[in-house]
Amino acid sequence: MHFFEDIKIGQRRELGSFTFTAETIKKFAMQFDPQRFHLDEEEGRKSLFGGLAASGWHVGSVCMKLLVADGQRLAKEAAARGEEIAIWGPSPGFRELRWIKPVLAGDTISFFSEVESLRTSEKRPEWGIVQGRHTGTNQRGELVYSVLATAFVPRRSAANAF
Amino acid sequence: MHFFEDIKIGQRRELGSFTFTAETIKKFAMQFDPQRFHLDEEEGRKSLFGGLAASGWHVGSVCMKLLVADGQRLAKEAAARGEEIAIWGPSPGFRELRWIKPVLAGDTISFFSEVESLRTSEKRPEWGIVQGRHTGTNQRGELVYSVLATAFVPRRSAANAF
Repeated sequence: MHFFEDIKIGQRRELGSFTFTAETIKKFAMQFDPQRFHLDEEEGRKSLFGGLAASGWHVGSVCMKLLVADGQRLAKEAAARGEEIAIWGPSPGFRELRWIKPVLAGDTISFFSEVESLRTSEKRPEWGIVQGRHTGTNQRGELVYSVLATAFVPRRSAANAF
Repeated sequence: MHFFEDIKIGQRRELGSFTFTAETIKKFAMQFDPQRFHLDEEEGRKSLFGGLAASGWHVGSVCMKLLVADGQRLAKEAAARGEEIAIWGPSPGFRELRWIKPVLAGDTISFFSEVESLRTSEKRPEWGIVQGRHTGTNQRGELVYSVLATAFVPRRSAANAF
């Protein structure tokens, strides 16, 4: 994970990709979003989605999982180089959460993250605030998911306080 | 579930409540958001959260689950009265997703939904578009979660087309 000072506007990373199988779509839906078009192929086909579709919360949660895994990879690489590791803080919220196209069974979604804005926290000067746009694109190159995420990121100068 | 014509701005419903135990917090985090403050009590205490905290995606997914269950309850009641049942469509997106306060292990969150705006779809005149504010409040009455959700809702006049 980077410290606030190491992050630049426009930095873009590929987070990884995930194939939404019918099985994973139904498993998530049964737990958290048991609407018929997320549970049954035929009901999906009859719906506006046109097929068995992943819950939007499933898509967002998978993006989160890949984002965390990417951060852990970065942290490991930094540790291997003997560098200090930044432990990111929580997120106060996300904006513009958009499910632009359905994610249907069999679709493989590639997720990316791009830094959109940087500012320091007035209330907590030891933290910076990073806004990043997370997006998902399907195997046909169509944008299916987008969200503007905010996160607290530690400033290098404050690292010794932790 | 209501048809578009039956929905009024300002309508507010209690969706239900959920207690985020340490076990459910860790289970979701292991699947979708394995950050240390969502996985371990001690790491949570050392973090900005001040305790083992639920992933924001977990809070959003539980709200979704209660929303769907509430819709299914409404549909069952309408069916028992011999009324036609509206099958809601998908959501194109959510806005202003805010995790206002941490949800810590043991917290019980009550979720509510309130209708904020109504309009008809230009592209798909058989559907209305409803914006609703979903919120979560903890056992101390503090607002912890808020999101502005958009959903496609069938118009009564178009019901026979389905």
